Amino acid sequence: DVKKAEKCVSIESLDAVLVDLGSISNSRERAAKMFKWIIHPVPEAPFFRDTWEKKPIYVRRRNPDYYKGLFSTAEFDRILREENVQFGVNLDVTSYTNGKRETLNPPGRALPFTVWDFYESGCSLRMLNPQAFSSTVWNVLSILQEQFGSMAGANVYLTPPGTQGFAPHYDDIEAFVVQLEGKKHWRVYNPRSEEEVLPVFSSPNFDQSDIGKPILDVVLEAGDLLYFPRGFIHQGRCLPDAHSLHITISSFQKNSWGDLMQKVVTAALEIAMEEDVEFRKGLPLDYLTYMGVQNSDKKDPRREKFLSQIENLMKKLPDYAPVDAAVDQKAKDFLHDCLPPVLTPDELATSVQGAPVRWEDGRVKAMAPHITTQTQIKLLRAGCARLCSDGDAVHLYYTTDNSRVYHKEEPKSCEVQAEHTDAVEFLIHSYPSFVTVGSLPCDSTQDRIALAELLFEKGIIHTAEPLQS
Amino acid sequence: DVKKAEKCVSIESLDAVLVDLGSISNSRERAAKMFKWIIHPVPEAPFFRDTWEKKPIYVRRRNPDYYKGLFSTAEFDRILREENVQFGVNLDVTSYTNGKRETLNPPGRALPFTVWDFYESGCSLRMLNPQAFSSTVWNVLSILQEQFGSMAGANVYLTPPGTQGFAPHYDDIEAFVVQLEGKKHWRVYNPRSEEEVLPVFSSPNFDQSDIGKPILDVVLEAGDLLYFPRGFIHQGRCLPDAHSLHITISSFQKNSWGDLMQKVVTAALEIAMEEDVEFRKGLPLDYLTYMGVQNSDKKDPRREKFLSQIENLMKKLPDYAPVDAAVDQKAKDFLHDCLPPVLTPDELATSVQGAPVRWEDGRVKAMAPHITTQTQIKLLRAGCARLCSDGDAVHLYYTTDNSRVYHKEEPKSCEVQAEHTDAVEFLIHSYPSFVTVGSLPCDSTQDRIALAELLFEKGIIHTAEPLQS
Amino acid sequence: DVKKAEKCVSIESLDAVLVDLGSISNSRERAAKMFKWIIHPVPEAPFFRDTWEKKPIYVRRRNPDYYKGLFSTAEFDRILREENVQFGVNLDVTSYTNGKRETLNPPGRALPFTVWDFYESGCSLRMLNPQAFSSTVWNVLSILQEQFGSMAGANVYLTPPGTQGFAPHYDDIEAFVVQLEGKKHWRVYNPRSEEEVLPVFSSPNFDQSDIGKPILDVVLEAGDLLYFPRGFIHQGRCLPDAHSLHITISSFQKNSWGDLMQKVVTAALEIAMEEDVEFRKGLPLDYLTYMGVQNSDKKDPRREKFLSQIENLMKKLPDYAPVDAAVDQKAKDFLHDCLPPVLTPDELATSVQGAPVRWEDGRVKAMAPHITTQTQIKLLRAGCARLCSDGDAVHLYYTTDNSRVYHKEEPKSCEVQAEHTDAVEFLIHSYPSFVTVGSLPCDSTQDRIALAELLFEKGIIHTAEPLQS
Amino acid sequence: DVKKAEKCVSIESLDAVLVDLGSISNSRERAAKMFKWIIHPVPEAPFFRDTWEKKPIYVRRRNPDYYKGLFSTAEFDRILREENVQFGVNLDVTSYTNGKRETLNPPGRALPFTVWDFYESGCSLRMLNPQAFSSTVWNVLSILQEQFGSMAGANVYLTPPGTQGFAPHYDDIEAFVVQLEGKKHWRVYNPRSEEEVLPVFSSPNFDQSDIGKPILDVVLEAGDLLYFPRGFIHQGRCLPDAHSLHITISSFQKNSWGDLMQKVVTAALEIAMEEDVEFRKGLPLDYLTYMGVQNSDKKDPRREKFLSQIENLMKKLPDYAPVDAAVDQKAKDFLHDCLPPVLTPDELATSVQGAPVRWEDGRVKAMAPHITTQTQIKLLRAGCARLCSDGDAVHLYYTTDNSRVYHKEEPKSCEVQAEHTDAVEFLIHSYPSFVTVGSLPCDSTQDRIALAELLFEKGIIHTAEPLQS
Repeated sequence: DVKKAEKCVSIESLDAVLVDLGSISNSRERAAKMFKWIIHPVPEAPFFRDTWEKKPIYVRRRNPDYYKGLFSTAEFDRILREENVQFGVNLDVTSYTNGKRETLNPPGRALPFTVWDFYESGCSLRMLNPQAFSSTVWNVLSILQEQFGSMAGANVYLTPPGTQGFAPHYDDIEAFVVQLEGKKHWRVYNPRSEEEVLPVFSSPNFDQSDIGKPILDVVLEAGDLLYFPRGFIHQGRCLPDAHSLHITISSFQKNSWGDLMQKVVTAALEIAMEEDVEFRKGLPLDYLTYMGVQNSDKKDPRREKFLSQIENLMKKLPDYAPVDAAVDQKAKDFLHDCLPPVLTPDELATSVQGAPVRWEDGRVKAMAPHITTQTQIKLLRAGCARLCSDGDAVHLYYTTDNSRVYHKEEPKSCEVQAEHTDAVEFLIHSYPSFVTVGSLPCDSTQDRIALAELLFEKGIIHTAEPLQS
Repeated sequence: DVKKAEKCVSIESLDAVLVDLGSISNSRERAAKMFKWIIHPVPEAPFFRDTWEKKPIYVRRRNPDYYKGLFSTAEFDRILREENVQFGVNLDVTSYTNGKRETLNPPGRALPFTVWDFYESGCSLRMLNPQAFSSTVWNVLSILQEQFGSMAGANVYLTPPGTQGFAPHYDDIEAFVVQLEGKKHWRVYNPRSEEEVLPVFSSPNFDQSDIGKPILDVVLEAGDLLYFPRGFIHQGRCLPDAHSLHITISSFQKNSWGDLMQKVVTAALEIAMEEDVEFRKGLPLDYLTYMGVQNSDKKDPRREKFLSQIENLMKKLPDYAPVDAAVDQKAKDFLHDCLPPVLTPDELATSVQGAPVRWEDGRVKAMAPHITTQTQIKLLRAGCARLCSDGDAVHLYYTTDNSRVYHKEEPKSCEVQAEHTDAVEFLIHSYPSFVTVGSLPCDSTQDRIALAELLFEKGIIHTAEPLQS
Repeated sequence: DVKKAEKCVSIESLDAVLVDLGSISNSRERAAKMFKWIIHPVPEAPFFRDTWEKKPIYVRRRNPDYYKGLFSTAEFDRILREENVQFGVNLDVTSYTNGKRETLNPPGRALPFTVWDFYESGCSLRMLNPQAFSSTVWNVLSILQEQFGSMAGANVYLTPPGTQGFAPHYDDIEAFVVQLEGKKHWRVYNPRSEEEVLPVFSSPNFDQSDIGKPILDVVLEAGDLLYFPRGFIHQGRCLPDAHSLHITISSFQKNSWGDLMQKVVTAALEIAMEEDVEFRKGLPLDYLTYMGVQNSDKKDPRREKFLSQIENLMKKLPDYAPVDAAVDQKAKDFLHDCLPPVLTPDELATSVQGAPVRWEDGRVKAMAPHITTQTQIKLLRAGCARLCSDGDAVHLYYTTDNSRVYHKEEPKSCEVQAEHTDAVEFLIHSYPSFVTVGSLPCDSTQDRIALAELLFEKGIIHTAEPLQS
Repeated sequence: DVKKAEKCVSIESLDAVLVDLGSISNSRERAAKMFKWIIHPVPEAPFFRDTWEKKPIYVRRRNPDYYKGLFSTAEFDRILREENVQFGVNLDVTSYTNGKRETLNPPGRALPFTVWDFYESGCSLRMLNPQAFSSTVWNVLSILQEQFGSMAGANVYLTPPGTQGFAPHYDDIEAFVVQLEGKKHWRVYNPRSEEEVLPVFSSPNFDQSDIGKPILDVVLEAGDLLYFPRGFIHQGRCLPDAHSLHITISSFQKNSWGDLMQKVVTAALEIAMEEDVEFRKGLPLDYLTYMGVQNSDKKDPRREKFLSQIENLMKKLPDYAPVDAAVDQKAKDFLHDCLPPVLTPDELATSVQGAPVRWEDGRVKAMAPHITTQTQIKLLRAGCARLCSDGDAVHLYYTTDNSRVYHKEEPKSCEVQAEHTDAVEFLIHSYPSFVTVGSLPCDSTQDRIALAELLFEKGIIHTAEPLQS
């Protein structure tokens, strides 16, 4: 009963939610539950039907501890103290005073001594990609990315009482503003025109006079949530009596139909040129004399003919559109963007990362765990690996060797031999069930075991039980 | 009377043809005449209707002097002696013996001593882009490029008696093999498959067993012509009793509808994303779970819906296709590929290149020729400049500062101010007539003169009479 | 009483030694004590007089716990598990079997599963620069670098029983082989020739037949030490009954008189050219006709004259040698090579890294600690900062922003204004005593405080007491 | 009789001089004669003893045609018309008005129309490296470079009446100002200080108030010469009644003893480190604590000891100085800087460039000229090739494939096998005499012929008689 599960989740703290999720075997289900908890009590289906990409929504919870454990200013302080936070790379110091927006980053490492000095003098602090420093944020985002099918990112904003750190502007992402501490006065405005609905790029900073009247004017308190789609202008200002700490969770940057269409039409045209000689025929010798902007006002029957031929060819393009291959191009980008999964203790114990091989008493213990045909295996996450066709070869792209730092690692993939593709596809489609190595559709037992060992070593699969040596 | 003109041209030598062309005021007409002379007595219209891009044609003239003056082995020798010809850059030494194709370029400059030694030992010589060294070839190609609306290139091939320099292969260009000296046995074969008709890329070297039976098997003698479209496999071998010198004039590389379509669809999609919110809407959250190669065999109603949406968007694309702007993108590439025009003495005397400003008797004579409103001006060539829209700004691209060496110069253009675009367009469309500077549709006399001076200084226009100071 | 202190140190464990060192206020003294502990019971003065750079020495301790805590295979295992260890970057897998040396690194991250599999199959493991992963190794090396005045590095070697991981070879560094676990049979050989005494570069791998007879043939057991200078060939092999873990601490790479001389003569010549016109005079017009290798056998009086002039100029060079400036060039390189200091809790509490500024209860506590003229300050380490003259300007180079990873950070420096150089020099020479800010030889109180704040923020100094706000 | 020859040369025009030089077999003699003609009637020996690098000299000839044929404004005009002269690369437009120096280059090609417009408006024109466009300048400089043993360069300056194009300044080269047309008022000033005598770098532009009083104040007329050493400040201004055209021939840029010393000391130190263990010994552990700028005021006996050791090592350096090898390093740079030789018709007919191999009547004539043991050979120029030792291998560097455009070609060399070095040295030292191929000290006739063929093909040697096939 979904309703019940939802309710069950909703009253839990983040810690409890995370424990609960551990008992769900399907990472996509986990992602959905996590997302429900974030937008609770707004139900998911209506949210995606009526609100998502359409309008802002404000969730008032009157429960300041709802998001507790996700991030805190104490954690912010610890990170400054213990991690190598660099101004301009991991942390921005900003101010917005008398309509003027400034960035005040000095060079070098951001130590608490300097950072808190900026804060005390009224500057806002934006920590970029806190998932690189906070394991909890990493965990939450790595779960959510499977809900969105698109990279989930985050920034943390700490603002002193009575100040504002940013000018009004809109972003190119869907934004979930999660209030963690204190409170903040938010104003949200409609996109200024049709062209700025769901925009492709973020806006510059606006003047107050550019943006009209807010359609939402609320004070977010700890535990509250504010969502607004890309293109909605927004600004947040601290009340005189309280600081504000919030984390903005974002997704759907460059994840539109048009973004996919770029891959589709490029690939479609390439195939059309290979398969259809009409695309390979030469242009008319004289087309430059009647086409082009300098000839666009000419009445010339050749123009009609030329335009009609272009239209004919464009109409043929859908016949050649390799939609699945284009989706794979997009998927490959997504897998590179993904955070690597955070493993539960059980997952750790049954995967290469925690394989029971260790040094004890002067020698290696439990060496070379045996994968046999009876070993039960499963992908570590529904979306941690994907078969993609690259022209002639088939590659398996995977997220498990990605870094917590965005694109610090190159895209990871390995070629999958023709005799292994069915088995990999079988494994992917069997998720979330475990399958025995012996059931993989390969030609020989040797092949089955070799494939399973490869996937195990890459950290893509784990086993039902810790391996025995 | 075109027929008569044609006949008139056909019996002329190249020198006479070039003189004749000098009296034609329209460079496009000149280009057409030059082309007719090359394919004479094949008439132009049927050629382009029945032969061009369709099949090879062999023109036997029994007039060894027909192409005299275009290029010769004596010129080849002179170039080696006087110009800095580099192996691998301007000259290739090749052989094809017992089915094995080799390139034998040593490093450094190609001096006659070494080159003729290779030749005597049975190697073929290919001079690349002889237009950089031969003014006649430069002149002919620069005229022809206006006939093709696409870059006209050339290579020269010198082959010792009884040898062959290249393996059978096909190219990615339309080829006119112009036999200049000696003779050569040519065999031409059909494309091997539908996919290799009008191919996008040249082929590798073929074995004799790959290519079937020739559809054309002829001996080209001096004065003869052989044309074959891209994709037709060919090989030429010298008879034991004679060397062969030919020049291959080529065009239509990457000049297909598909090549233009790449610019059209890229631009169309960009505009669609700006103008149509459907393109900016986000992809379904879960599309990666049912789309992509690994899901292509799945029966899933969501796949149908997704594919149908892609199709809808593709169908909308033609509405946004900025065909003229895309043609301009292609035209800009062409203008960069173009050879600069070779000026006649009259043109020289009336353009910046030969402007009557010179140093005489210790001082500058005839300084600062005055362009007045009465000055009559005209583009130097129909295609030597073109107005292209680059997003917001309008630029005039031009060929007159290009180099005889391919792409040695960057693309040349200058921005055209909004108040000058009508005048530039007027000038372009007035070609081949002269117009007075005073008739340019500008706001003021000052503007008219400033524009004319700019175009004159860039070498884009010339005047009806030499300028007076 | 040095003897007593030595004895005191010698019986202590590493942990106790480190605690003891914490009570020594001078980092150079700490470095000396640490070094004495490492070579104990060999006394320092005779070591540097008779052994250092001269011959190997073997210290047998019969105390397997002597170096305990420095590093262990358990730590090795932990690092593989918890840190991002990359094959080829942080870890090498090697073997030396039947005289053949191989490196067997796969691509990607080195997880225990794979690493221990290599080990079990007889491969040796070399962890490069363990200081990046082990805080203890970092601490020990950062202390020792002040003893050597040259970078202190380390590698860890783990070898399975009965195997050898490396061919005989010599290195370009002074090596201290510290046996941590198990035992290893070592053979050390004299340099093969005068030219290979104290060599500039490491050797290739040798065959057993190249290296003659060992001059030292011992079995190192846990707690033992082996030192040998650069140029001494060595090989270590595990006995069949025990694995071996050792750490090799190294120093004095490119730290010879000749390395300094390169900086001296380059700078000397530059100054000579500025100051002495003899160096700026032109060469003889005809010198190329009698000098150079092709003329070296000629009897020509001009050769004598030319050579004598060169000799004269060389003899003048010492007059222009800016030795101190050249030493600073070398020092700058060393400061860039240095590990950043590991701070004691007291140092942390009194420096910018642990400045009592933190977030508590929703606000910043103990903000903006005040540096006053009474504040007592001191460099964090004798060698953590150095004034160097760069032509006209004076810069302060410092190590405190370096990374544990070699050269991950650019060299760090800040320009010191002319009015501050005396004060910085005073501070440096006052080490290890604290001085009050008020005693800095600056022009004004404002200057004194500004300078102290700058040095405090860069992490170069700490205060006698934690700062009060 | 040198006097006579000198006189003979002196009354000749440039054309006659060049013809005369053609009859001199030794290119170094030719260079000396050419130089004498330039400075005539100043005798060479006193010039180099008293004037060269010491003071300016003014030669008044009252013969406006003396340098006729070297360059002219008509040639300037022709070059603009026929060659691809680019502003900023080959031509600078400058002005110096009211104490302000400006460079006014537009982008792109410098056509006469634009250039003469600048000139008429009072701008000076500087053509850089006219040897790329003028064969006569190329010829003269390529001859002179053998006189200087250092690159000979040139710039041409054309100045309108009554104007000045450059601010007062000094250069880093020896300058010979050769007045070709019109006249110019020159003022030359002493170097401002000892440090600016024979300076290493050119000066910035000076104010009139910086430079004191001229030591030379003359009006140069056509046929006159002005020489001044590097470091002498100079300015030239046209009189109101005449334009000025002069060419400045320059040499001895970076050709001082100090420039050679850089190569000597670097190489000496390298050898010292290989051969002398004192250079390889480590620095004192504690040297950074008493050496360096921050310790330079310390009284410390260790400082004395350290400085004395540096001095000892510096005193040893001359023992290791490989002067001939260092000269070869300098020579290699010079050979790369050299202009390729301009061949006389006789030289052309007897070298690879004019080898009697050509295409005639449909076939290669006089193919493969035979070099036999009787063939007499000789270097084309004394300095066109040089044997240089590069560590283990010996290379022959040569100038004959250099370009007229500075450093357009990479340095050219070929390795000389050990069995050929004696023969190449023999050939070089035999210059200017011809030697037979049979007399080359090689092991076999085959070797002798192979070597001669190689040198012939590289254009390094020519033969006494045109080769016969």
